[in-house]
Amino acid sequence: MKENLTMLMDLYELTMANGIFYSEDRDVICYFDMFFRRVPDDGGFAIMAGLSKLIEYFKELKFTQEDIEYLRSLNLFGDEFLEYLSNFKFSCDVWAIPEGTPIFPKEPIVTVRGPAVEAFLVETMVLLTVNHQSLIATKANRIVRAAGGRAVLEFGARRAHSYDAAILGARSAIIGGCVGTSCVKAAKDFGVKPSGTMAHSWVQLYKDEYTAFKTYAEQYPDSCMLLVDTYNVLKSGIPNAIKVFNEVVVPKGFRPLGVRIDSGDITYLTKKVRKMLDDAGFTDCKICVSNSLDEYLIRDMLIQGAAADTFGVGERLITASSEAVFGGVYKLVAVQNKQGNIIPKIKISENTAKITIPSFKRAWRLFDNETGKAIADVITLHHEVIDDSKPYEIFDPEHTWKRKIVTNFTAKPLAVRIFDKGECVYECPTVKESAEYCKAQVDTLWDEVKRFEKPHTYYVDLSKNLWEERAALLEKHSVKG
Amino acid sequence: MKENLTMLMDLYELTMANGIFYSEDRDVICYFDMFFRRVPDDGGFAIMAGLSKLIEYFKELKFTQEDIEYLRSLNLFGDEFLEYLSNFKFSCDVWAIPEGTPIFPKEPIVTVRGPAVEAFLVETMVLLTVNHQSLIATKANRIVRAAGGRAVLEFGARRAHSYDAAILGARSAIIGGCVGTSCVKAAKDFGVKPSGTMAHSWVQLYKDEYTAFKTYAEQYPDSCMLLVDTYNVLKSGIPNAIKVFNEVVVPKGFRPLGVRIDSGDITYLTKKVRKMLDDAGFTDCKICVSNSLDEYLIRDMLIQGAAADTFGVGERLITASSEAVFGGVYKLVAVQNKQGNIIPKIKISENTAKITIPSFKRAWRLFDNETGKAIADVITLHHEVIDDSKPYEIFDPEHTWKRKIVTNFTAKPLAVRIFDKGECVYECPTVKESAEYCKAQVDTLWDEVKRFEKPHTYYVDLSKNLWEERAALLEKHSVKG
Repeated sequence: MKENLTMLMDLYELTMANGIFYSEDRDVICYFDMFFRRVPDDGGFAIMAGLSKLIEYFKELKFTQEDIEYLRSLNLFGDEFLEYLSNFKFSCDVWAIPEGTPIFPKEPIVTVRGPAVEAFLVETMVLLTVNHQSLIATKANRIVRAAGGRAVLEFGARRAHSYDAAILGARSAIIGGCVGTSCVKAAKDFGVKPSGTMAHSWVQLYKDEYTAFKTYAEQYPDSCMLLVDTYNVLKSGIPNAIKVFNEVVVPKGFRPLGVRIDSGDITYLTKKVRKMLDDAGFTDCKICVSNSLDEYLIRDMLIQGAAADTFGVGERLITASSEAVFGGVYKLVAVQNKQGNIIPKIKISENTAKITIPSFKRAWRLFDNETGKAIADVITLHHEVIDDSKPYEIFDPEHTWKRKIVTNFTAKPLAVRIFDKGECVYECPTVKESAEYCKAQVDTLWDEVKRFEKPHTYYVDLSKNLWEERAALLEKHSVKG
Repeated sequence: MKENLTMLMDLYELTMANGIFYSEDRDVICYFDMFFRRVPDDGGFAIMAGLSKLIEYFKELKFTQEDIEYLRSLNLFGDEFLEYLSNFKFSCDVWAIPEGTPIFPKEPIVTVRGPAVEAFLVETMVLLTVNHQSLIATKANRIVRAAGGRAVLEFGARRAHSYDAAILGARSAIIGGCVGTSCVKAAKDFGVKPSGTMAHSWVQLYKDEYTAFKTYAEQYPDSCMLLVDTYNVLKSGIPNAIKVFNEVVVPKGFRPLGVRIDSGDITYLTKKVRKMLDDAGFTDCKICVSNSLDEYLIRDMLIQGAAADTFGVGERLITASSEAVFGGVYKLVAVQNKQGNIIPKIKISENTAKITIPSFKRAWRLFDNETGKAIADVITLHHEVIDDSKPYEIFDPEHTWKRKIVTNFTAKPLAVRIFDKGECVYECPTVKESAEYCKAQVDTLWDEVKRFEKPHTYYVDLSKNLWEERAALLEKHSVKG
């Protein structure tokens, strides 16, 4: 049984919902978009994640009587509104981009349409869920790409920002490309193989390192991975490991799995260790490294010839510490009046980067039919269809003279419908399926977009109709300002 | 009903526990210390937090039958061990430093003593819980100090690293000194006043800003705080706010609470806004500011004369984004053999900073009786007592010629016993009490230790006995290396 998260909202959602409830706009239908403004670490793209939990949240939305009494005690809300909350049923439509999809700034990644009160109430949970999980999936994907095909394992639970961050962070890391996690609960919950062997405390527990290794190898001859840096990697750890491999593992008919190094200069040590293992006949023994790794360190170590086969990545992955914030926002983009007309809404701002794209809309990805590569994304009004049987002109929304005609392409809408009037109509793929999907979709991006340093800016354009609608709204508000 | 977190552990804890279970060291009593090596953001001290959840975890430790069957399916564990787990009962002794206490690198902040299997199994949860919550309490305390007495509100739920991070992060922020949180669930769970008013979406919802403000003020005349930056703060937001204060709030017999600014140059805008409000007779109307604030920005804005009364701090607090990792570790420091002798254990490392302090020990804080200020912390063997009725010599453990004799002081052990043979013997103070305790304890630190840039290094010394024991172990292992 899990804790109900209905009350995990910012107070202003409730004060606004109460305000709307008693105003004449109570029945207005609102359109909200979640989108983000920049990719963490100045990367070329992010990876969408979080849908599975978001769906669970929408399904389980329910205020308990205790919640209602607490809210009543705040003296902010009317009795009728509290009565409404106690019978709350989510009835919105929701569209979202599937987990594992590369996503770009400005495009709607989640869209919520529904009665104002409802659409206002879910803001925090939509953002919290997708921001966190996309942050970690994005970071994991960067680290996995830096490792260039070598296995990356998620080892970060102890440094995660609490329990969900450990469990859902591990899940997001798997979607982003990690092949395993040390977190038993995450492995169990998401059907992934858990990974791990020994800590320094194991080695310290015994009278010496040799005895510690020997005891372990006797217990686990078929999965023997030894941590070799408790005292001294080259003078003690590796000689003892080789001795135990020869005395225990091999005689029992197994090959050692590997050794793990968790301190010191990993590049230097792995080269020396590789030679020592090879010389002893253990060319198949893997070297797993850990210790505050991230994509930058892994890239540099590999350039310098580190002989690492597997990377255990902890704190810098699970907290995305190089940039620990995924800045997704949830903004009102349109309302529908009683006549059924959709009225676009814009938020102007002192910071131009914070000006929103109005209207009920959706994002498309255009794929080159010859190369299979993604050419650009185009955001259109929701009812617009990009006809990929004909040439299509895209243009830069800021520098509108920059134009390009795209031919021989396939246009795919990015979002799927996940709720229809409050009913879930989408089944999440398994974590493994999302991970495979992620890999395949990242493969459709040009290498230039995947670079860590100053990646090529992938085009996210607006359709002509949408561009004109936005320009008109900006004009209207600039006159008023 | 909350999710049971027993399975939130790293796999190696289980493989090691299984190994120990079947070895002759099964009944050995282990001593583990949690400590950290450096303060995030190169600060002078950290703030302890997380005990309340840690206690809950220890109390609720229980493997379900489903957990056991899952573990069996991994083919790593013996049947007897799984049987043991299914009847698992936590029987360790635990000491910890109370929440809200300033803590320093190297000193034990949690100590676990108990049967090896048990003490090994709890590593991840001890670290995860205390690392996350101490990280946020520490960051919050920095931000609160930068605000120099002005109120700081925690607004970060939407950018938190998932649900617990939002809820427990808000709790930690309160301990660190925030006076409120926007998170309704955290406010409810921890008895704190929730805070918040309106989002830009409220303003966008109505036909114009004036109507949006008027509608809000009519609903909440007694707590009217208006968000003034949806279109243009000085030309539209403030004039509309003043109009609505005069037309709605004042006639109803109330004073406006304030205005909130969430974009643009806050320093510039607050000065202009202050003048406009004052000129309109609203000298008592508060100015609340938000938008990616942290201690550095708040400090600089205040130096430049920003007229802000309240700070709403979100993503940079709830993720501690300037340094998102609190690097606490959990290390074996001693074992007790069958004869009852405590044998100290050390972990050497290629990185000297990673060498541990062996032995069952505790930390003391020495307070100057005249000023009430903290002079230094001293780590002693656990049975040692610092007699503060006599002069006491402290010395730097690295540079042992640096010595000082302390007189007229009071020595207080920092940790309290929280579990006695598996039984909880400590009652956590309320969050409010911990927050008050934190404030009082931070007041005992010299300003030099509280500086953000290159703070004075507070002394954490070792007693003579402990220093000698460590030196002997280092000597022993250097011979072996």
